[in-house]
Amino acid sequence: MAERIVRFLKGWSVVPLLLLILICAAQAQSDPLPSWKDGQVKSAITDFVERVTTEGGADFVKPEERIAVFDNDGTLWAEQPVYFQLAFALDRIKAMAPDHPEWKTTEPFKSAIAGDPKGLAAAGEKGLVEIVAATHSGITTTEFSKLVAGWVETARHPRFDRPYTELVYQPMLELLGYLRDNGFKTFIVSGGGVEFMRVFAERVYGIPPEQVVGSSGIVKFELGPDGKPALVKEPKVEFVDDGPGKPVGINRFIGRRPIFAFGNSDGDQQMLEWTAAGDGARFMGIVHHTDADREWAYDRQSHIGKLDKALDEGMAKGWTIVDMKSDWLNVFPAAK
Amino acid sequence: MAERIVRFLKGWSVVPLLLLILICAAQAQSDPLPSWKDGQVKSAITDFVERVTTEGGADFVKPEERIAVFDNDGTLWAEQPVYFQLAFALDRIKAMAPDHPEWKTTEPFKSAIAGDPKGLAAAGEKGLVEIVAATHSGITTTEFSKLVAGWVETARHPRFDRPYTELVYQPMLELLGYLRDNGFKTFIVSGGGVEFMRVFAERVYGIPPEQVVGSSGIVKFELGPDGKPALVKEPKVEFVDDGPGKPVGINRFIGRRPIFAFGNSDGDQQMLEWTAAGDGARFMGIVHHTDADREWAYDRQSHIGKLDKALDEGMAKGWTIVDMKSDWLNVFPAAK
Repeated sequence: MAERIVRFLKGWSVVPLLLLILICAAQAQSDPLPSWKDGQVKSAITDFVERVTTEGGADFVKPEERIAVFDNDGTLWAEQPVYFQLAFALDRIKAMAPDHPEWKTTEPFKSAIAGDPKGLAAAGEKGLVEIVAATHSGITTTEFSKLVAGWVETARHPRFDRPYTELVYQPMLELLGYLRDNGFKTFIVSGGGVEFMRVFAERVYGIPPEQVVGSSGIVKFELGPDGKPALVKEPKVEFVDDGPGKPVGINRFIGRRPIFAFGNSDGDQQMLEWTAAGDGARFMGIVHHTDADREWAYDRQSHIGKLDKALDEGMAKGWTIVDMKSDWLNVFPAAK
Repeated sequence: MAERIVRFLKGWSVVPLLLLILICAAQAQSDPLPSWKDGQVKSAITDFVERVTTEGGADFVKPEERIAVFDNDGTLWAEQPVYFQLAFALDRIKAMAPDHPEWKTTEPFKSAIAGDPKGLAAAGEKGLVEIVAATHSGITTTEFSKLVAGWVETARHPRFDRPYTELVYQPMLELLGYLRDNGFKTFIVSGGGVEFMRVFAERVYGIPPEQVVGSSGIVKFELGPDGKPALVKEPKVEFVDDGPGKPVGINRFIGRRPIFAFGNSDGDQQMLEWTAAGDGARFMGIVHHTDADREWAYDRQSHIGKLDKALDEGMAKGWTIVDMKSDWLNVFPAAK
C-alpha cells in the first residue's frame, strides 16, 4: 500500500512542481506594478483598485466614474533643479536673444541668457512672470506647440543628460497603465501650462490632450489677413491650476469628482481633500521625495515642490505616502 | 434541355428572392441614420465618415484625432421659445420668490414671477444677467446639479408638453451614435452653462461630463466649518463659450482641432471656421431651422439662434446645410 502511494507520488511529483513554476512565472509576468516594491503602499493601490472594480462589491464604482487625477511636476516626472517648463522658457530666452539686444542689459533676461541662477533668483517672481510672458505669448498656439515639440526633442537634463521626457517615473507609468487597464480614465491636473504638457502627454503618459488640465494664459481668436483663423497667446494669466485652483480646474474641465488622486506637494493638498470628501471608496496618494541618490530628497523646506501641510494632513488621515527610496524599485525608465 | 433549365430556375427562384429580402432587411436595419432622408446631406455625412475611417485612404484620420464638436441649443436640442436654460432660471426665480419678498416690486424679478415676457424683454440683457446671477450662484456646484436634475425631471415644454430633454433632435442622436461607432470622440461646445448641461448630457446624448465645453462662472474652493471642502458658485462670469470664444474653448478644453463640427447659428461661425482651417478632410454642418410645423422656422431675423453670416459663409464655402423640413424624416424622438 505504502509502495503504491510512493509510486503514485513519484509519478506525479514533477507535475505540481512544473505547475508551480508556471504559475509563479505567470504571476511575475502579470504583476502590473513591477517597479513598486511589495508592501503596504503597493497593496494600498491594488486593494483599492480591486475593491472599486469588483462587481457586486460594496465599493464598486461604475467605469465612467473611475476618474483618476495626477499632478505632473514631481508626481509623474521630476521637477529639480527647476521645473522643466522653466528650463524650456530659459532655453527659449537664449534662442530669442539675438532678436532682443535690449535683453543684454535688462533683468531678468540678462541673467537668463548668462545662465546665472543667483541673478534669476534676485529677479524673484516678477522676473519669472516676465520670462514666462516673453516666451509663452505673442505667438499662435500652433507655433507654440511646435517650439515645445522641438525643445522636447533636443534639450537634455543637466544632471542626468537625458531628454526631460525620459525623467518620468517608471512606477507612475506602470500605475497609469494599470488604472486604465482597470477601466479608469486618467487625467493630469497640474500647475504647469496646459499647452506645454499637451505636446508630450499622449506619447509619454498615454494621456490625450483633452485629459490634461493645467494653468493657462488668455488666448484670442483672430482672422489673419488671408482670412485664416488663428489662436494667439496673450501675455496674461487666465487660470492658475494650483492649490485651491486644482479642485476648481477639476470641476471646470472634468465635471466629476475623482475617486483617485496623486500629488507630491502642498499645491496638491486641496485636490486631495476634494477627492477625499466624496462618497464611497477613495484613494489619495503622495509621492515623498526621499531618494537623493537616484533622484532628489526634499520636502518641507524646498522652494520647488514644497511638501509640508499636505504631508501632515496625509499622515493624519491615512493617505498613502510613497517613500520613493524604499517603495520604488526603479525611479526612471531604463535609458533607451 | 430547356425543361431542365426551367426546372433549375424554378428550384432556385425562391432562394435569391429570399436572399434579396434578407439583404434589404439587413440594410434597412443597419442604416445608422434612419431619420435622415437619403440625399445630398446624408451622403455628405456618410461619405466623410467613410473617407476618414478608410485605412490606407488619402483622408484617413487616426481614431484619437477624430474629434467631433456639436453646439447644443438649436443643434442638439430645441431653443424656442426661449433657451431652455433660461426656462430653468425663470422656474427657479418662481421657486425662490417666497424667500425674496423684495422681488415682488423689483424688475426683472417681478416680470419673471408674473411670467410676463414683455417686462422681461424690457429688462434687457442686464435683467437677464441678474436672473442668471440670482439662480446660478451663491450655492455649491453639488447643490446646483441637484436643482438642475430636479428641474429636468419635472419641467415640461410649453408647446410640446414634454420634458425638455425629450426635445432633442432624433437625427442628431443618431449622428452622435454613428460617429462614436466610427471611432469619433463627441463633444458639446455650447454657449450654455457647462454645469447645467453636464447634468443630463451623458444620459441624453451619451456625452460624458468631461466632454462638455460651455460657458462658466467663477467657482471658489472653500473649506466649511466642518472641514468639508465645497465649490461655491459666484455671481461672476468666467468664460463665454460663444462666437470667437468657441475655438478658444476648444483649445482650452480639448486641445485638438476638431475634424467635424455642427452648429446652427452665428455663434458657431468661428468654431466652424476653426474646424475648416485644419489640414485634411473636414466636415462643417449647419442645422437650418425651416420647419414651423414640426419645430420652428427662423434664421436671419431671430433673436434666438440668429443664423445670418454663418449661413452666407456656409453656402459660399460648401458647408453642409441641413434643411430641417426636407432632410429630417423625424425631428424629436417618439414620445415615451
